[in-house]
Amino acid sequence: MIKIPEKSDLSQTHNRIKPFIHNTPVISSTLINKIFGGNLFFKCENFQKMGAFKIRGATNAIMQLSDDQKKKGVVTHSSGNFAQALALAAQNLGVKSFIVMPTTSPQVKKDAVIGYGGAIIECEPTLKARENTAKEVEQKEGATFIHPSNNMDVILGQGTACIELLDEQPDLDYVFTPVGGGGLIAGTALSANYFTRHCKVIGGEPFEADDAYRSLQSGTIESNTSTNTIADGLKTQLGDHNFPIIQKYVEKIIRVEEGEIVDAMRLIWERLKIVVEPSSAVALAALYKEKGAYKNKKIGVIISGGNVDLGKLPFKS
Amino acid sequence: MIKIPEKSDLSQTHNRIKPFIHNTPVISSTLINKIFGGNLFFKCENFQKMGAFKIRGATNAIMQLSDDQKKKGVVTHSSGNFAQALALAAQNLGVKSFIVMPTTSPQVKKDAVIGYGGAIIECEPTLKARENTAKEVEQKEGATFIHPSNNMDVILGQGTACIELLDEQPDLDYVFTPVGGGGLIAGTALSANYFTRHCKVIGGEPFEADDAYRSLQSGTIESNTSTNTIADGLKTQLGDHNFPIIQKYVEKIIRVEEGEIVDAMRLIWERLKIVVEPSSAVALAALYKEKGAYKNKKIGVIISGGNVDLGKLPFKS
Repeated sequence: MIKIPEKSDLSQTHNRIKPFIHNTPVISSTLINKIFGGNLFFKCENFQKMGAFKIRGATNAIMQLSDDQKKKGVVTHSSGNFAQALALAAQNLGVKSFIVMPTTSPQVKKDAVIGYGGAIIECEPTLKARENTAKEVEQKEGATFIHPSNNMDVILGQGTACIELLDEQPDLDYVFTPVGGGGLIAGTALSANYFTRHCKVIGGEPFEADDAYRSLQSGTIESNTSTNTIADGLKTQLGDHNFPIIQKYVEKIIRVEEGEIVDAMRLIWERLKIVVEPSSAVALAALYKEKGAYKNKKIGVIISGGNVDLGKLPFKS
Repeated sequence: MIKIPEKSDLSQTHNRIKPFIHNTPVISSTLINKIFGGNLFFKCENFQKMGAFKIRGATNAIMQLSDDQKKKGVVTHSSGNFAQALALAAQNLGVKSFIVMPTTSPQVKKDAVIGYGGAIIECEPTLKARENTAKEVEQKEGATFIHPSNNMDVILGQGTACIELLDEQPDLDYVFTPVGGGGLIAGTALSANYFTRHCKVIGGEPFEADDAYRSLQSGTIESNTSTNTIADGLKTQLGDHNFPIIQKYVEKIIRVEEGEIVDAMRLIWERLKIVVEPSSAVALAALYKEKGAYKNKKIGVIISGGNVDLGKLPFKS
């Protein structure tokens, strides 16, 4: 049985990681508000260090280790933002990091990890190989494994973006986030629960990777058989640490089509003039899909990150 | 003989237009500072209303008209940002606007002008046809012609972006801007001259449209015979109102190749996570080209705008 964190856990997490993260800006657009018929406030984690919210959870998880654990370093497997996040967080805290990445990872992602001082260990591009390789590093180096989303210290760290959003906009009616592994939405739901009276948290998830939606329906953790979505940050799997929090505190999850994700992404780029990754657009796409239900509401939208390959954008002329 | 404006003209302009513009953010990137070996501060006019600094000059020019002139409206010819800027500024001030646009203008640009309440008058896609059509509107409607760059009230308005930048970073050594029609760099040079002790202003210009560079060399206004540059906002021609200011107050102009513009644009998108138009990247490309000369300096870079066709980006994978 998972123990759900308390309000003080979130506050302490925020104070702990503050020196190592940016308090990212919250921005708005008159035109987007017109389109949606509400007041939207975008928390821009694309401007966060390493370009995504993930540095929050990674920093918190490392800071909660014992001195002995810190000496031996940390290990994770990720081909995405958490690889960079753990490497940079470890570097900032003077800790070694081992990042298990599939041999198929683009060189630009490997370079980013190396740039942040992470040691890359390559493996075959299967989940099994990733997990086994990470386990080998744990055993060989004595490093502590940090899961990208299914780890309570990571979840608490991710929840701090919403604390900052609520500092600026205390009377939000809703906060929308994307749902991938579930760390961001679980942390956000805890923050909204503890730091507001009535603010509800809603998730956006691609139809192509809708394990969280189906898990909420069935009451047990479901898996994705395929994950054919442009929102590559959301292909990951819900876990047993974040699912109980999501069940208890998330209002609902709205699923969106691939074309809806690209449309929302384009709206953000064109109107907010910011570079965001497809995963970030899923939250706005979900709100757009049911926008009639959120007229005249004050709505926070968490922009999860901005790491995108500019040579492979989905926009058509 | 053009009378060069005084310090009080700039201050009064800023106070006048403040209620109608955003004080846009100034942002930095540790990684970009490392690459350049200096401290760079980007003034983000891509976040300005209608997506570019041009709303500043348009607003000021309309506000300086007599009541009678305001009643009859304003007219300009532009296929770019100034078309939208004049339409929106006029709408904000309750004034009619007539925008002469070539028949070849993309529908998205026409829609933007219409969205801001501008009346579009189409003409053949030649400078001659544009000028004649604008003149006809002047005569028929009694509207006042506002030139996009060669107008002292426009120049003063454009100079206010640098005033705000200097409010945040008072001890800049240099400010870099792109050079097109010359309104932005002339206004910026006036601000740097009046509001700092030693800050110098430097322009970036595409080799493919280097009329300002050649004009400074020869001492008379030179023309572009062709303007085959991706920086479509910089194809316009220097004028007799801004040239004397540029001659007196601009340190120098650095010319850049097309590939250098795209590289600088990509650096801005990838590292600052903001959407900027190619013209905006020309200033950073110029600084990069001669970066050895600006080591350890504090440098402002004016990001002119963010209106770009996402379906036609120049980035390769």
